[in-house]
Amino acid sequence: MSERAIGVFDSGVGGLTVLRELRCQIPDESLVYLGDTARVPYGTKSSPTVLRYAHEAAGFLLNRQVKLLVVACNTASAVALDELAKHNQVPVVGVIEPGARRALEVTRNGRIGVVGTEGTIRSGAYERALQAGRADVMVHAAACPLFVPLAEEGWAGHDVARLVAREYLAPLLEKNIDTLVLGCTHYPLLKQMLQEVVGPGVQLVDSAQETAKAVAVQLKEHQLLQQTTPAQPPRYFVTDIPDRFERVGGAFLGEKLQGVTTVSLEGI
Amino acid sequence: MSERAIGVFDSGVGGLTVLRELRCQIPDESLVYLGDTARVPYGTKSSPTVLRYAHEAAGFLLNRQVKLLVVACNTASAVALDELAKHNQVPVVGVIEPGARRALEVTRNGRIGVVGTEGTIRSGAYERALQAGRADVMVHAAACPLFVPLAEEGWAGHDVARLVAREYLAPLLEKNIDTLVLGCTHYPLLKQMLQEVVGPGVQLVDSAQETAKAVAVQLKEHQLLQQTTPAQPPRYFVTDIPDRFERVGGAFLGEKLQGVTTVSLEGI
Repeated sequence: MSERAIGVFDSGVGGLTVLRELRCQIPDESLVYLGDTARVPYGTKSSPTVLRYAHEAAGFLLNRQVKLLVVACNTASAVALDELAKHNQVPVVGVIEPGARRALEVTRNGRIGVVGTEGTIRSGAYERALQAGRADVMVHAAACPLFVPLAEEGWAGHDVARLVAREYLAPLLEKNIDTLVLGCTHYPLLKQMLQEVVGPGVQLVDSAQETAKAVAVQLKEHQLLQQTTPAQPPRYFVTDIPDRFERVGGAFLGEKLQGVTTVSLEGI
Repeated sequence: MSERAIGVFDSGVGGLTVLRELRCQIPDESLVYLGDTARVPYGTKSSPTVLRYAHEAAGFLLNRQVKLLVVACNTASAVALDELAKHNQVPVVGVIEPGARRALEVTRNGRIGVVGTEGTIRSGAYERALQAGRADVMVHAAACPLFVPLAEEGWAGHDVARLVAREYLAPLLEKNIDTLVLGCTHYPLLKQMLQEVVGPGVQLVDSAQETAKAVAVQLKEHQLLQQTTPAQPPRYFVTDIPDRFERVGGAFLGEKLQGVTTVSLEGI
């Protein structure tokens, strides 16, 4: 079983920041990535719709015999993680729990900011995860719908991005947060700019990095770490034709994207 | 037949700007609106995927016996209009041809700018429509992916919107355009700000307004104008649950949205 691949899914390109961290932290593991680009984004869709899409995406990867499933999308993690864990045999790792755990480790004043898509913030999943770990923590959350298109446009260093970030983050900074969770897999691309905007007194938590750490722990616990076979190159599947995924995804992966196959999730 | 409703579809809320103009220009007509909110947006998806979605949306409205079909989405009009017109019995009106025709009427120097989603601009549909009407016209097009989230955030009057518009429009203004086609049904919400950015020397063409005029002409030509029955209140259908559509859509429609029903397009 340990020689099987890890399955990673997201609504589109964002989860590639998680894939990148997985390759960096556990380079011996083979990876299969699915981006549901025909229905991207999940962040503006309702919970029942995201739940249905997540089941279909997970089904596709489980049909490919993955040994562990990574829900590399905050919205899908917020809405569907418990359901996916309940209905499947393999370990399922989301991006919310690892980021929340790290935020609780680093905060000194117990005031934690969270930024994410409309769907993630509306779900209240970060509040629940943070307050489950420490009941007296204060959580200040903000939906930032413009961050995803800014990241995809490659405008992270643009004045517009700074202006947007200041607007979204002002209410959080007023609350004197000392920790900010980047609760969307697109946001690592905006990390440097966000650090400038929040200043050195606020520590950023990159949920992609934390998720990769959590995956390594889970593999070890379940004795699923790759033992012998060297890793296969990652395989990429998308539900729309791959042009845009290849073009935009390179920036998220940090290298040229190759070997992308289009598949249908209907009837899974 | 004339007492039947007009069917209008878009990927989401944007087409409500067209519906609003239809209600204003032909108030006696009954209207049925479909927003494919479970799969919105179409603007970043590939042509084959948009074509499939458009066929399903059209199928839903035709099953409801509409007398005329309005493709109130520039991306779907760019990709699917010819196919929809070929396969259906009722007149089909898109948003591109009317906007292009109006732009050719108002331009004095023959230099026309077009702004739209990635999908619309990549399709080259406006260039084709404009140059079919007048071969020597110069068309300068720009994809503006941030305009849709800015409109949906209600940030039309925000400094960010102006900064983004200046960035996108600078190359078009350098080409000395005297006409700018708003080639996305979201953009009427940004009209005032865009007029400020381009200055009084550039005339904006609102494709929602032009499309409503084209619908009135088609109804007359096909003797489909409503004769007797007073108009029913518009009916709204969406493919995701209606919360966000009702909340964001009000600004596009110019009034509170009521009576929204969720439907599935699968298997149409």
